[in-house]
Amino acid sequence: MLIKTINELREYLQPYRADNNTIGLVPTMGALHNGHLSLIKAAKGMCDRVVVSVFVNPIQFGPKEDYNKYPRTLDADYDLCTKNGVDVVFSPTPEEMYGKGFILSNDNLTYVCPPFNYTDKLCGKSRVGHFDGVCTVVNKLFNIVQPNFAFFGEKDAQQLIIIKKMVKDLNIPVEIIPCPIVREASGLALSSRNKYLSEEGKKQALVLSKILNNIKSCYDKGIKDVNLLKETAFSFLNDNVELEYLEIFNSETLEPQEVADSSSRAFIACRVEGVRLIDNIKLGA
Amino acid sequence: MLIKTINELREYLQPYRADNNTIGLVPTMGALHNGHLSLIKAAKGMCDRVVVSVFVNPIQFGPKEDYNKYPRTLDADYDLCTKNGVDVVFSPTPEEMYGKGFILSNDNLTYVCPPFNYTDKLCGKSRVGHFDGVCTVVNKLFNIVQPNFAFFGEKDAQQLIIIKKMVKDLNIPVEIIPCPIVREASGLALSSRNKYLSEEGKKQALVLSKILNNIKSCYDKGIKDVNLLKETAFSFLNDNVELEYLEIFNSETLEPQEVADSSSRAFIACRVEGVRLIDNIKLGA
Repeated sequence: MLIKTINELREYLQPYRADNNTIGLVPTMGALHNGHLSLIKAAKGMCDRVVVSVFVNPIQFGPKEDYNKYPRTLDADYDLCTKNGVDVVFSPTPEEMYGKGFILSNDNLTYVCPPFNYTDKLCGKSRVGHFDGVCTVVNKLFNIVQPNFAFFGEKDAQQLIIIKKMVKDLNIPVEIIPCPIVREASGLALSSRNKYLSEEGKKQALVLSKILNNIKSCYDKGIKDVNLLKETAFSFLNDNVELEYLEIFNSETLEPQEVADSSSRAFIACRVEGVRLIDNIKLGA
Repeated sequence: MLIKTINELREYLQPYRADNNTIGLVPTMGALHNGHLSLIKAAKGMCDRVVVSVFVNPIQFGPKEDYNKYPRTLDADYDLCTKNGVDVVFSPTPEEMYGKGFILSNDNLTYVCPPFNYTDKLCGKSRVGHFDGVCTVVNKLFNIVQPNFAFFGEKDAQQLIIIKKMVKDLNIPVEIIPCPIVREASGLALSSRNKYLSEEGKKQALVLSKILNNIKSCYDKGIKDVNLLKETAFSFLNDNVELEYLEIFNSETLEPQEVADSSSRAFIACRVEGVRLIDNIKLGA
């Protein structure tokens, strides 16, 4: 079922909740791919009712980012969802989410602001305010759907870590279920933004997963010094790939580490053909 | 029943919620007086289960404010609650709410931040960050208790307006029930901070309600010019009463007004014997 308004969604869910059915939420920005499908399958396996939200959230895009250009494929998304047993696709307009004539700024809107220690690094460094926008919309979706479980991909690892922190800090009664990154056979992590890449660009983009896999091999072979591990990346880089960051941090707290251990995760962001791509890998088992 | 931990409270409430009982929350900082009692009575009248939280929230006090000195009277609060049919008094420690070794700053904690247009005036002007602290703890309490209704006094009018805005902006599934200011026979609005006043100070403090009542009479007599209405206050002031602010704003949006109308509310803050007191009155019917 396709539902576009908050009230209709609440009315739909109310009897299931009253009946103590478990509700799963898969929050997405649409342009669904097999990565999203893995979240949907995890939700179907755990919950009586599954809601997939499809909402390109304006407040998590910076003024120079791709909000207008971001792929919108609701018909295909809806088909994929119904074929995979999703009960509701919730696809509100920005006006439904933020009110008519909304002006998106903290002058007029209550924001949920994750801690600076989690947002002043990695993607947060170049995307100022991005995670405030993410936490605000996820908080809203949690309040609208009131799910028992919510499913997030490990591909957006910083987002997942920040949402888990938000849930803990605000005592949100939702259990966050992290789902592993889904990759093409080539190793490229699935992303809605891969649609922006040419075939050649997709080949260039393999540099991200190659760098991460190499760091993981080196770690497994006993190299634990973070600077040494990061230096192994240089041989993979070339003029077609612009490195934004490569970091090894604690996977729960995002604290920098000098020596990698089983808590560590390597995070990378690059631009290929002007498209910003991210990937990450856990170093411990 | 007195409950001190989040898990115990959730366990207590779970079967009632599963049974579709309605739950009412009265969030307080303790030092309960007849103003709080009116909230409890309203909650008892509307809800199957009533929870009163008693928590002096460290993150809503500024570094120079009265957090340590704030009156703590849990035994008396608990008696008042049980005598008036409250089911649970929830009185967590700061560690229970914010974690062990907590450091209260947006470096480490997810905050809920109400819009600047609502916080850059009235009490927010002198109490920077106060309403971020209020919204964060109220959001946490809502997530912990998951009440159907929550009861707030109109005494803290800016707080009430900001919480209503938060509930709307974040789609929080809680209905906010505003309750009228309770006053002593003298006209003094009840406040936990009245305990700091001497008998003489309580007499001086009547200036607040006198100024507000006079503005309301003038408004009723046809004076609508906001500056004129505010000027009527001067004759009441004296050296014992230090005026912090006197404003007439829209009662929902806190927007300044030049001409008062039925949407208007007059807000006042003064210091008497060093104690900061606030009061307000709705001008329309």
